[in-house]
Amino acid sequence: MFGGMYAHGRVGAQVGDTAWLHALLDAEAALARACARAGVIDAAHAEAIGACCVPERFDASEIGRAAAASGNPVVPLVRELTRAVGGDAARHVHYGATSQDIMDTAAVLVSRRASAVIQDDAAAVADGLAALADAHRSTLMPGRTLLQQALPTTFGLVAAGWLQAVGTASQRLGTPSPAQLGGAAGTLASLGEAGPRVAAAFADELGLAEPVLPWHTDRGPIAELTGALARMCGAVGKVAGDIVLLAQTEVGEVIEAGGAGVGGSSALPHKRNPVAAVSARACAGQAPGLAAALYAAQAQEYQRAAGAWQSEWLPMTQLLRVTGSAVAWLRTSVERLRVDPKRMRGNLDLTGGLPLAERVTTDLTPDLGRLPAHDLVKAACAEAVESGRDLADVLTERLDGRRTAAQVAALLDPAGYLGAADTFIDRAIAAHRSRAAKEDDKAEEKEHG
Amino acid sequence: MFGGMYAHGRVGAQVGDTAWLHALLDAEAALARACARAGVIDAAHAEAIGACCVPERFDASEIGRAAAASGNPVVPLVRELTRAVGGDAARHVHYGATSQDIMDTAAVLVSRRASAVIQDDAAAVADGLAALADAHRSTLMPGRTLLQQALPTTFGLVAAGWLQAVGTASQRLGTPSPAQLGGAAGTLASLGEAGPRVAAAFADELGLAEPVLPWHTDRGPIAELTGALARMCGAVGKVAGDIVLLAQTEVGEVIEAGGAGVGGSSALPHKRNPVAAVSARACAGQAPGLAAALYAAQAQEYQRAAGAWQSEWLPMTQLLRVTGSAVAWLRTSVERLRVDPKRMRGNLDLTGGLPLAERVTTDLTPDLGRLPAHDLVKAACAEAVESGRDLADVLTERLDGRRTAAQVAALLDPAGYLGAADTFIDRAIAAHRSRAAKEDDKAEEKEHG
Amino acid sequence: MFGGMYAHGRVGAQVGDTAWLHALLDAEAALARACARAGVIDAAHAEAIGACCVPERFDASEIGRAAAASGNPVVPLVRELTRAVGGDAARHVHYGATSQDIMDTAAVLVSRRASAVIQDDAAAVADGLAALADAHRSTLMPGRTLLQQALPTTFGLVAAGWLQAVGTASQRLGTPSPAQLGGAAGTLASLGEAGPRVAAAFADELGLAEPVLPWHTDRGPIAELTGALARMCGAVGKVAGDIVLLAQTEVGEVIEAGGAGVGGSSALPHKRNPVAAVSARACAGQAPGLAAALYAAQAQEYQRAAGAWQSEWLPMTQLLRVTGSAVAWLRTSVERLRVDPKRMRGNLDLTGGLPLAERVTTDLTPDLGRLPAHDLVKAACAEAVESGRDLADVLTERLDGRRTAAQVAALLDPAGYLGAADTFIDRAIAAHRSRAAKEDDKAEEKEHG
Amino acid sequence: MFGGMYAHGRVGAQVGDTAWLHALLDAEAALARACARAGVIDAAHAEAIGACCVPERFDASEIGRAAAASGNPVVPLVRELTRAVGGDAARHVHYGATSQDIMDTAAVLVSRRASAVIQDDAAAVADGLAALADAHRSTLMPGRTLLQQALPTTFGLVAAGWLQAVGTASQRLGTPSPAQLGGAAGTLASLGEAGPRVAAAFADELGLAEPVLPWHTDRGPIAELTGALARMCGAVGKVAGDIVLLAQTEVGEVIEAGGAGVGGSSALPHKRNPVAAVSARACAGQAPGLAAALYAAQAQEYQRAAGAWQSEWLPMTQLLRVTGSAVAWLRTSVERLRVDPKRMRGNLDLTGGLPLAERVTTDLTPDLGRLPAHDLVKAACAEAVESGRDLADVLTERLDGRRTAAQVAALLDPAGYLGAADTFIDRAIAAHRSRAAKEDDKAEEKEHG
Repeated sequence: MFGGMYAHGRVGAQVGDTAWLHALLDAEAALARACARAGVIDAAHAEAIGACCVPERFDASEIGRAAAASGNPVVPLVRELTRAVGGDAARHVHYGATSQDIMDTAAVLVSRRASAVIQDDAAAVADGLAALADAHRSTLMPGRTLLQQALPTTFGLVAAGWLQAVGTASQRLGTPSPAQLGGAAGTLASLGEAGPRVAAAFADELGLAEPVLPWHTDRGPIAELTGALARMCGAVGKVAGDIVLLAQTEVGEVIEAGGAGVGGSSALPHKRNPVAAVSARACAGQAPGLAAALYAAQAQEYQRAAGAWQSEWLPMTQLLRVTGSAVAWLRTSVERLRVDPKRMRGNLDLTGGLPLAERVTTDLTPDLGRLPAHDLVKAACAEAVESGRDLADVLTERLDGRRTAAQVAALLDPAGYLGAADTFIDRAIAAHRSRAAKEDDKAEEKEHG
Repeated sequence: MFGGMYAHGRVGAQVGDTAWLHALLDAEAALARACARAGVIDAAHAEAIGACCVPERFDASEIGRAAAASGNPVVPLVRELTRAVGGDAARHVHYGATSQDIMDTAAVLVSRRASAVIQDDAAAVADGLAALADAHRSTLMPGRTLLQQALPTTFGLVAAGWLQAVGTASQRLGTPSPAQLGGAAGTLASLGEAGPRVAAAFADELGLAEPVLPWHTDRGPIAELTGALARMCGAVGKVAGDIVLLAQTEVGEVIEAGGAGVGGSSALPHKRNPVAAVSARACAGQAPGLAAALYAAQAQEYQRAAGAWQSEWLPMTQLLRVTGSAVAWLRTSVERLRVDPKRMRGNLDLTGGLPLAERVTTDLTPDLGRLPAHDLVKAACAEAVESGRDLADVLTERLDGRRTAAQVAALLDPAGYLGAADTFIDRAIAAHRSRAAKEDDKAEEKEHG
Repeated sequence: MFGGMYAHGRVGAQVGDTAWLHALLDAEAALARACARAGVIDAAHAEAIGACCVPERFDASEIGRAAAASGNPVVPLVRELTRAVGGDAARHVHYGATSQDIMDTAAVLVSRRASAVIQDDAAAVADGLAALADAHRSTLMPGRTLLQQALPTTFGLVAAGWLQAVGTASQRLGTPSPAQLGGAAGTLASLGEAGPRVAAAFADELGLAEPVLPWHTDRGPIAELTGALARMCGAVGKVAGDIVLLAQTEVGEVIEAGGAGVGGSSALPHKRNPVAAVSARACAGQAPGLAAALYAAQAQEYQRAAGAWQSEWLPMTQLLRVTGSAVAWLRTSVERLRVDPKRMRGNLDLTGGLPLAERVTTDLTPDLGRLPAHDLVKAACAEAVESGRDLADVLTERLDGRRTAAQVAALLDPAGYLGAADTFIDRAIAAHRSRAAKEDDKAEEKEHG
Repeated sequence: MFGGMYAHGRVGAQVGDTAWLHALLDAEAALARACARAGVIDAAHAEAIGACCVPERFDASEIGRAAAASGNPVVPLVRELTRAVGGDAARHVHYGATSQDIMDTAAVLVSRRASAVIQDDAAAVADGLAALADAHRSTLMPGRTLLQQALPTTFGLVAAGWLQAVGTASQRLGTPSPAQLGGAAGTLASLGEAGPRVAAAFADELGLAEPVLPWHTDRGPIAELTGALARMCGAVGKVAGDIVLLAQTEVGEVIEAGGAGVGGSSALPHKRNPVAAVSARACAGQAPGLAAALYAAQAQEYQRAAGAWQSEWLPMTQLLRVTGSAVAWLRTSVERLRVDPKRMRGNLDLTGGLPLAERVTTDLTPDLGRLPAHDLVKAACAEAVESGRDLADVLTERLDGRRTAAQVAALLDPAGYLGAADTFIDRAIAAHRSRAAKEDDKAEEKEHG
């Protein structure tokens, strides 16, 4: 029921039952091939096993139910797989492995596949934001601190900041986790001398790194994934939150322009809710708690934990799902985003130059000293607010000839007080291009390498 | 796939898509009847609407998908329901309500139904523990602090402590949440003067309390539920953790005696894992993070939140599910539990009387003063440990006539040093019976009232 | 350094080192008196011990340092206390107790004292909000959902909702925890038959409830406190968040009117930040994580935990501190609050009647049917927005005689579309008064009882 | 009071008030020098400012108190600093910066300094564990899964696994965060064209990286730190948890050998609690909740957040403190650790060869097929357990000539069934040395570069 909201985009398919089943079977098939490469089992047997490692042959919910008796789904899966393989080859199913080897390796595969989809959506978000940053270099808007107008900025710089947040978070998500193969107590004892060779071949078969030693109860790799996902949700939550704020009726600087039926209210015909940004926040907001669950689960006993390991599967799956959905919703929101530069400028003018007060202070400081300058400007601001008069007029009057009306007007022109905004936009776009180029190189390498 | 493990027992059926759909439709039907009772709509229309509020007529996953466009599942559900009702009555579907009225009320219904199942399993756990507490009043075992043997206790007292923890947590879970009905901005404006009458009838129809005013963005009721569930998971985690520890190969004071295939290892034929207790821990361990997510979601803006409200549904559903599963697993574990009094006594004797050292100190304190007594006993303990001699002998020797060998032996007899253990067991069982009687009264009242 | 911000109000003094020391010594003194009442030690000795239980005689940071060696501060405190008492009485210091008895009882005392201060500040907040609710019954403002204007409401109703959230959360905080006395393994063995009598007297001396049995590793009482504090922070975060939003430059419906230097910016002379509400949010936002830490710590092993118990002290102290500070900041914010009814009305008029569209739909539904009415109004709204024309005019035109201009104007008057707002305000104020009266009764009872 | 436990080791001094004050002043001094380097202010003024940036000249608690009025400690600090500098130079204090620039940069400095101390303690832990891994290559012990004995392993391999967990977590902690300089709205507007030059010089002065653009509301750097600390606490919690388990009275494979007064109980003279490992767990267990708080605080509004930013300071400080203390406690625990190889071997023999059952299954599989072999061995194990007979005898009998008694004995010898244990130990030690060498290079580079 909540699938439509939470599993937005393509991540749902990467973390569902079928995806997990797929990954578990990939691990079993790779194990068989690795054993064959290391000369531990016959190549023909490995092939026979691999041929049966097809998700369609298994019933995920049946396996889930059977998992209850032994505490994890690998036990019944291996039983079913052994039955499916049959004959001599059946003896070599799951050879030398323990349930956790297969579960952890499958978790790594599921995470990698889900992360690829997440990074793909994040790249689309970043492209969209880079375009907005470039297009709105000169679109003046109020910079706001503590939700109060502070100084002018540009929507280009705002978008550049969003871009940098999402882009770097996405890059961080690419860190690969190693395969897992240690056998019942982490010694690979049942594989004898062939153990390390099988482990190396196993990782190679799956395109994963080989670990220094089994990490059954060293959950560093899961912690890394957790941190990367929680950071990504933080970045999405920040951007989506800003969109919701900018779309407020009283602010109106952006809207999410959706098609029919999108963002409508069940009762209010006039509303245009920023549904995609709201949904992105709803997804992203679940990450900190899920991260806490995964970090707490790091305290795993001895060579296999009695509960903590098993408690990882759902929060991890769910953290991947909400992160992917959050990014997909943000992608939708950015695609729907319509910017209203006129409203931005209008809002900036609401306070009649007050946000530029800092600049006047700075300009006067050499003449008057910082504190007197600050005090004079503050008093002028107060007078302008109370009397409803124009700040420029009040200031010119109070400055009593120290600045002309034209000088005061220039000081209060927001377009002239943007500092390094353009430089920062350039840098953010350049950093984005450099990250994108690296990703392209990696993708090409994968294809041809 | 993880359903077998996580949705153990009957809670899964209370929090799944069908259960949510059921609750949403119950709310819509109750709303129609309430409007009719308040004279706002025709009774015939209410009946027509109620007749269509049957889960079987709707497709939960379809509604979930459609929810994406408007941000919650009520919008598409109302659309489908309106279509199903047809005719004049269709105009009065969802009359006066906003989506959140239906979602929140459904959440309260789902929570109440799931809680009933959880409390039922908790009652079975409590009954089992009360029986164990009574049966093992005289079963001596080591009391352990910081996982070191400290003083003797009885398994009866240990079970009484578990009983009190689970029993009081279950009682706490019964706090009911109020219905929700406020309309689009919490004023019930579209119902005019009939608003409060409709709201009262709505709550009454569902057997829920009427709130003082709509709690759209006052999430106190959700926070209460959260706290009760997190506490219950804490209680389960404590008991299950103790069972896992007591079942250690080196401790062996309890085992989970399962049928064939239960607790088996994929590779090790000799193992007998306490699978139910491990699964209970795996479920209970997820609660703190989910609670954090729900508490964080309390910060809801204005009259309806832009993300925080929507972020509650999954963690709440999941928290109900893991709590229910944790309790169900604990029930299974307690049902399977076999206690080994001989091994308990054997472990207590492992340290040759060391746990009773405190008693000797106390006995000597009037003669020697507390510190000298403490030092003498500590030295004797150290000597006994290092030399491998019996503590009784070493003490008798060191006490040099101040106590006879028989006196020392009596002091070191654990059965004589159990303090208020029996009193505490009596009290815990009495408190259990009083809680159970109250529950029976409530159930009877419901049936006949 | 962060004390000024985090430990706002009076809670800091209730949870600092001195407060803890005070509580620990209160527990030791009560234990001595209880032992005397039960005839276990001399009354004179109890008096001598009690006379030394004065915080000024001890050095909290010294005891903190010494705690490192034995894992908790009670061990060095008892050593120091024993030294201070001297003579025969010294033998009866900490009689029959284990460190955790004293620590847990002190935690209960600290929580109770801190909660009293928190409730006191919450009562002031509630009084302020009740006054605002009553005074602003007729102050029209936009009701907002998803941060979009939805329907009119009144600031009185908004304040009533805040009142109900804070008031009920505060009431919940009053649940008392029981004393703790179980001795080294929870059996009170070293007190022999006198155990239960001592435990009853101990609780009575401190005005605490006696537990059914020791709760050394049943952390239910801590979980209850945790839930109550997290709920309170949620309520504060909601109200403070709304104040921050209402104080936005573009909304301007409230300001925090502070004295000189309050809410000033280091660089911007014109800004007026709602510092108190911002600080309240900063404090309240820390609660969910701290709650997660405390819930996770419930999984305590056997008769005393090896880490989990010890991990409670700081999060619990910190949760009390941030809750107390959050409430105190909210009190400051409410005291400083200036409401701008003109701006509220102005914002409501921003959308030229759009928020009332629902009402027109409702009015037309009997004539046209719900969907056609909805569609007609939606189209009119769209035209009004796009053309910039008045919604009343567009609607009158489109309704083509089905309603007069005056009828349309009346439908679009927000003052006529407030539903049960006044009823809800009355109820919230009545509920507040009833809670306040109960508190007064309790206070009086305490004084005279 | 809780300082002794929580702020163990040297991290307390790096995160206390003085450390924060130090870092804030370092940032102000660097800003002045950077402005001078960029030609914005006089070098003499920068020097005058730098000369006053000495912690001793300021009162941290006074500044903390004053912070309440403006929402952060930088405002009062700048006021005090400006007063201290005096004269013309005073005008250039805090030039071009906003409070958050100084707070965030100080947070980065505090984190870097605290992390250095944490990494130093972690290096000592790793050295100790590497030595244990090497020394105990042949120390047989039971490998345990779900707290049940599974297969033999060596304490060397166990220590190698701990080493890898702590070593890689420590390496991860070294990621540096960039400086922060953006001015009031992130544009550096008040520095005009000189902005980027000042920002570059500012970062350079502090030895920090320059950010692509200001990260006032992109909390990626804080999220990275959070993840690294939470992972480290996870690693420490795992190792400390294993030590507590191995030190159980009934297991007794290690003890923490402390001096006088260490690990003593207030009541039980014979106990030897693994206090350091328990304290490490108590500290590490607080990390997940603190991490959740920091991740949740990532959702920061616009150009400066109204609460979320301010809510970071305490959880961040506290997360650094508990992580540093956890690592320091683990260092103490590892230094105190005494390993009992005899007891390890004794425990392994407890089950009379049962843990080797897997090996017999493997050996028989080619002859009998996997399932029949598994069943035969399982039945033999069951018989041995029930009858109390030696597994070797039962197996030889049941194998009925298929294996000789000597063959069965060899199969059941744990020393022959350690698989890749030695290889894994070698790899973990090599990885440790490579990490240590890299750290040395970095340190040398810093010194000479």
